[in-house]
Amino acid sequence: MKIAIDAMGGDYAPREIVRGAWQAYQDTGQQIILVGNRSILINELKMLGDNCAGLEIVHADEVIAMDDAPAVAVRRKKNSSMVMAAELVRNGQASAFVSAGSTGATMAAALLHMGRIPGIARPAVASVMPTEGGVTVLLDVGANVDCKPKHLVQFAIMGSLFAHKILGIENPRVGLLNVGEESTKGNELTQETYPLLREASLNFYGNVEGRDIFKGIVDVVVCDGFIGNVVLKTSEGLADFLMKLISQAIRQSNLAKIGAVLTLPALKKLSKKLSYSEYGGAPLLGINGVAIVCHGSSKALAIKNAVYRARESVENGLISAISDSFNNNEHKVG
Amino acid sequence: MKIAIDAMGGDYAPREIVRGAWQAYQDTGQQIILVGNRSILINELKMLGDNCAGLEIVHADEVIAMDDAPAVAVRRKKNSSMVMAAELVRNGQASAFVSAGSTGATMAAALLHMGRIPGIARPAVASVMPTEGGVTVLLDVGANVDCKPKHLVQFAIMGSLFAHKILGIENPRVGLLNVGEESTKGNELTQETYPLLREASLNFYGNVEGRDIFKGIVDVVVCDGFIGNVVLKTSEGLADFLMKLISQAIRQSNLAKIGAVLTLPALKKLSKKLSYSEYGGAPLLGINGVAIVCHGSSKALAIKNAVYRARESVENGLISAISDSFNNNEHKVG
Repeated sequence: MKIAIDAMGGDYAPREIVRGAWQAYQDTGQQIILVGNRSILINELKMLGDNCAGLEIVHADEVIAMDDAPAVAVRRKKNSSMVMAAELVRNGQASAFVSAGSTGATMAAALLHMGRIPGIARPAVASVMPTEGGVTVLLDVGANVDCKPKHLVQFAIMGSLFAHKILGIENPRVGLLNVGEESTKGNELTQETYPLLREASLNFYGNVEGRDIFKGIVDVVVCDGFIGNVVLKTSEGLADFLMKLISQAIRQSNLAKIGAVLTLPALKKLSKKLSYSEYGGAPLLGINGVAIVCHGSSKALAIKNAVYRARESVENGLISAISDSFNNNEHKVG
Repeated sequence: MKIAIDAMGGDYAPREIVRGAWQAYQDTGQQIILVGNRSILINELKMLGDNCAGLEIVHADEVIAMDDAPAVAVRRKKNSSMVMAAELVRNGQASAFVSAGSTGATMAAALLHMGRIPGIARPAVASVMPTEGGVTVLLDVGANVDCKPKHLVQFAIMGSLFAHKILGIENPRVGLLNVGEESTKGNELTQETYPLLREASLNFYGNVEGRDIFKGIVDVVVCDGFIGNVVLKTSEGLADFLMKLISQAIRQSNLAKIGAVLTLPALKKLSKKLSYSEYGGAPLLGINGVAIVCHGSSKALAIKNAVYRARESVENGLISAISDSFNNNEHKVG
């Protein structure tokens, strides 16, 4: 099984992308196709030593930039590393597609070149968040800004299958993100979605509030892509802010500085737990093939973990599980 | 000037409410009317000593509970401490109304008994959030789950006036909470709101993302009440989670434990900065009078700060500033 990586996408591309791919190959022998400018990639590989037999290169002339309009870019830049990596999966030359480029463009490339699973109205971006109990899958976090209740139901089913097949959670509890616990709470969208989720073949917990996400009360939290994106970015922003405050507070006192040296190893463990690098990227659920988008600022570790997540998704049959579930017809959207 | 306090609302009512009121009186001579069960309140006051001349009591038989349906409760429980406190403002016996009861019921009581400022379609709950630069006003955080663009424009104007009049910020920068910075980004609501905000008499910065809230890029962040509520509760949940992780991480190592003792004073300062107790509650903007709702778990310090915030709002003419702005007709909603 080969994994196609958009080697030119991301803030630290191509260097950190190549390094992450190389580490995955070194550690587990995973075969990888790096898609990007051949001469640049060969240079990067040379710096890593000779033993790069598992790292194939497919040349791509163009790069899709972070600020390119996604839908336009994936149509016009047919020779971009992102589009060509997605095409490798469509053509059967690779089993999964990984990119740290723009989330919108990665979704657009996956949709256009890999297609949707039949029955899925809209693919969703899922994010794996650290919680008190372990992790929670939050979706959608960016692709679908205006959703209908039936879309949220499909997100719930896909999130539940991801939590089961990939995170190994038996009978995952699914919560609907809302402003209160009672079934009558919410805006039009959540009020109409609640009864549909109760009727779906899901372990539906009910409504959950923003503060419940990190408590790990449920395994899957469902919301529209606008809210999910705001929640994800607010969480990133707040975690950054708190870490800055802690280091500021500590720098202001000599006693605290001494204390900080002693607490540092403990805090490093914590920061590791919070880092997106640990969680293997965000799967694009509903795409007819394994596609994973990594944070734009991904370094080698994040790419390596995304490669492992992609491999697990292929090995555990995530796509056919989603496909089978929607071929039952029961969740189909008219 | 007297401030009416719902002494029976909140997780720690009436004890902490009475103490907060008493502290405000002790520290500044602020006259306060405590509304609630007279014999219980007299008992609480007795425990605080004799010097309670500024703390008047108005007896109220009933209490609105956290899980009462807001609109129903404020209509049925006419003798509740919350409703009677709001009525004291309407009757001119008090200049401001403070409650730590349910946000929904406090808003309903304020709407029913104090009314809206003419021209305002929907009052909003504003929250003052700590940021790198100081504070940012986020609104709406709970009252309005389905909004139209014109509502968001009114929130922006009210938030801007609050930031100017009460937080002392000259020409406050106003941002629209969105999933990207570009003007074309967003869901239907934000895409339609953007041009209206640009045309309004506001210092409109443009779109801001979740991660920008805590950077303090703008002074006012506008969003619908569903998103605002989710953002607020997610932030509370994440801050709790991080604090738990830090203390867990530290407990696991003896060296870190010693370090923690030394960093403790610095971390306490930090935790103070993050505490809602510091920020004087959430003003209900658009109500025709000063109304402030405090966090349900408010203790004396939070109540005292809310009393000060209420007094500033009266003294600085917040209501007439909003009223004048909307009487120009320019922001009126048809």
